[in-house]
Amino acid sequence: MIPAPPPTTPPNIVFVLIDDMGYADLSCYGNRLARTENIDRLAREGVRFTQFYVSAPICSPSRTGLLTGQYPQRWRIHSFLETRAANTKRGMAQWLDTKAPSVARELQKVGYATGHFGKWHMGGQRDVGEAPLITEYGFDTSLTQFEGLGDRILPLLDADDGTPPKRYALGSDTLGRGSITWLDRSKVTGAFASRAQAFMTEARAKNKPFFVNLWLDDVHSPFFPPKAVRGDGSKKVLYNAVVQEMDSQLGPLLEYVRTIPNTIVIVASDNGPEPGAGSAGAFRGQKGNLYEGGIREPLIVWGPGLVQPGVVNEKTVVTSVDMFPSLLKLAGVAQAHDGEELSEALLGKKQPLRRRPIFWKRPPDRPGPSARERFPDLAVREGDWKLLCMADGSAPQLYDLKTDPGEAKNLAREQPERVRQLTELLLAWNKTLP
Amino acid sequence: MIPAPPPTTPPNIVFVLIDDMGYADLSCYGNRLARTENIDRLAREGVRFTQFYVSAPICSPSRTGLLTGQYPQRWRIHSFLETRAANTKRGMAQWLDTKAPSVARELQKVGYATGHFGKWHMGGQRDVGEAPLITEYGFDTSLTQFEGLGDRILPLLDADDGTPPKRYALGSDTLGRGSITWLDRSKVTGAFASRAQAFMTEARAKNKPFFVNLWLDDVHSPFFPPKAVRGDGSKKVLYNAVVQEMDSQLGPLLEYVRTIPNTIVIVASDNGPEPGAGSAGAFRGQKGNLYEGGIREPLIVWGPGLVQPGVVNEKTVVTSVDMFPSLLKLAGVAQAHDGEELSEALLGKKQPLRRRPIFWKRPPDRPGPSARERFPDLAVREGDWKLLCMADGSAPQLYDLKTDPGEAKNLAREQPERVRQLTELLLAWNKTLP
Repeated sequence: MIPAPPPTTPPNIVFVLIDDMGYADLSCYGNRLARTENIDRLAREGVRFTQFYVSAPICSPSRTGLLTGQYPQRWRIHSFLETRAANTKRGMAQWLDTKAPSVARELQKVGYATGHFGKWHMGGQRDVGEAPLITEYGFDTSLTQFEGLGDRILPLLDADDGTPPKRYALGSDTLGRGSITWLDRSKVTGAFASRAQAFMTEARAKNKPFFVNLWLDDVHSPFFPPKAVRGDGSKKVLYNAVVQEMDSQLGPLLEYVRTIPNTIVIVASDNGPEPGAGSAGAFRGQKGNLYEGGIREPLIVWGPGLVQPGVVNEKTVVTSVDMFPSLLKLAGVAQAHDGEELSEALLGKKQPLRRRPIFWKRPPDRPGPSARERFPDLAVREGDWKLLCMADGSAPQLYDLKTDPGEAKNLAREQPERVRQLTELLLAWNKTLP
Repeated sequence: MIPAPPPTTPPNIVFVLIDDMGYADLSCYGNRLARTENIDRLAREGVRFTQFYVSAPICSPSRTGLLTGQYPQRWRIHSFLETRAANTKRGMAQWLDTKAPSVARELQKVGYATGHFGKWHMGGQRDVGEAPLITEYGFDTSLTQFEGLGDRILPLLDADDGTPPKRYALGSDTLGRGSITWLDRSKVTGAFASRAQAFMTEARAKNKPFFVNLWLDDVHSPFFPPKAVRGDGSKKVLYNAVVQEMDSQLGPLLEYVRTIPNTIVIVASDNGPEPGAGSAGAFRGQKGNLYEGGIREPLIVWGPGLVQPGVVNEKTVVTSVDMFPSLLKLAGVAQAHDGEELSEALLGKKQPLRRRPIFWKRPPDRPGPSARERFPDLAVREGDWKLLCMADGSAPQLYDLKTDPGEAKNLAREQPERVRQLTELLLAWNKTLP
């Protein structure tokens, strides 16, 4: 909506999404059982977040939050997309509606080359073969696996016991609508990365910025790392071998990206760990539930010259749906508005509670009746509380509008913690203004 | 952004904005010195809000919030637009950037006939004659007064003392860029209303829905009601006469609107009262400051068959910037996303605090390990607090993530008020889902 001035050169964006990897499974987040050197290096050279949340503790809705910038349940994607019958039984859509917003489509509109490589899982799996193609969601091209349509790589599971490798397709090989390549599961990450790299090269040849989803699927059961690193064959060992191998296979792509100026790489995981495999560290819970372990994930943002190096952001709570407005802002097509959609209140049908605070700033030419008596510079209302203060946060006035609509009784002294919180919120808002 | 399914017939929308009228100046909001029968009738037949806020306690930024759906300071509109020198001195823009979002432009794009009639004050006043025309902001046509460009009506002030009426133009008559009609100030509201009515008739002939701003300016000093109702000539009497006369002159238009199906009329005021003239009732403060009296205003929404009749909404806090997403939603072009724009955090440049809570809903096929031990259905994080509960609000768990990231110590019993607030917020969010 807001045509912000376009940046000198819109940045390239590569979004690496890992599958079912827990909060503490990268070594830069504390893993001692696997080394993720390439990703760790991105973290050292970029920003590492400790308070990143996905929109759901399971694949399909988590991915929907990233793509659409909306809570996935708005599109009836509550859990992982399964068979037609299972989707219906759980009250879910069969696939993500193509009318849903798509950050890829918005970037495509403003001239980005857009590619999706890897797991999709927003439609076109099991027996659901008539779902839209990934290219209908704003991607110029795609290569996926058994949870998406179009050209795909399906894995061969090699048990390393002398028997032929088994095909693992979950029905995808019967759906048509794209070419199928069978590949040893331990090599799939490299294949997706290599295809993504070729796409970037093509985009550069066309002088287009690129937006690439590289959504890996190896770090998800069944775990089939290369033979050499299978150790005792236990679930934990196999899992950590897969994590480390995923990092290794990303290496060449990340080296290539270093040669391309103006490029941002984002690394995250889609939901919490499967029990017995990954780890959420100190957090409670796992894949599938809403405790922190199910929804708090790694997030690393890297981009020499664009992204501040060596930052650990323990303060900003970021969530998947923030990617939509944030990436568009980075591309110079910011779309935010400050309001809340309250049409049902306007129509008198409901009386919803407001979800966001409201902020105000005093006109500069209305300082107050005298030098001694100044009007407050700033104000915020959150719930029934209203805080007014000067631009530096001083002279706070706190009122409970429910019991004191006339703002007669200043409760700032009685409630220092609330004053602190609201002042911080208000000053942070003020700083967003030009 | 979200191409919501278009409503069967997009509703017509008439936005009546009154100037400098206080919260308590309509008789349906408690005024005993003037009767506003026509507007009161809209309130009886529609929804009347008691917690509506404007974006600023003064004209230009308040109007900017309504038009753009953004805090007006984002566009450097901090106070009323004045002369070039005065604007510069206060760090303000000379006019609203045409790159700013405009609800009119969005409605125009989807086929609405859009007209602005009355006070503008977002550029083109005093000595600033090169501001954009109102039609550059998404209006097909416009008729304004001395605080806008294009065709305009300028007032003649008749002191009723035998001397010729004085022209009152604040320099607008020297700016060019439109035809000028001089008219007795006591008749200006009727002239704007009449022109708006003609516009609606034209739109209907073209089978187009219409969006009409009818932004009146009589209820703003200088107060020049018709001679017959000037009473003792005191400020208070003149003011209330102007309020009542404004209501009367709206009458024919409102009667006409009753003949047009599928039409919503919205009535509000742009900021708090000028001292000695209007009244904010029990609220503290006035035009220009951030106490409730400066920013809390009447809001009435009427529309037979669309809007519930006879509702007084004392619960929903609505603010000007909400009109942008809410009106677009009503027109079937809802644009909301759920995320927050946090690109500066992604770039590591700042560590902003999140302004909105985050919500989650558990996948339905992950109910919990046993019938006795169920995972929570819903969760919300606001600040450092996280609340989890079942879909009906039962079994709340409250954690302070700052001190207890492992969600080990449930504080729900200790903090019933916080549990109540967060539960209400969370259940309200859940209700917005399909």
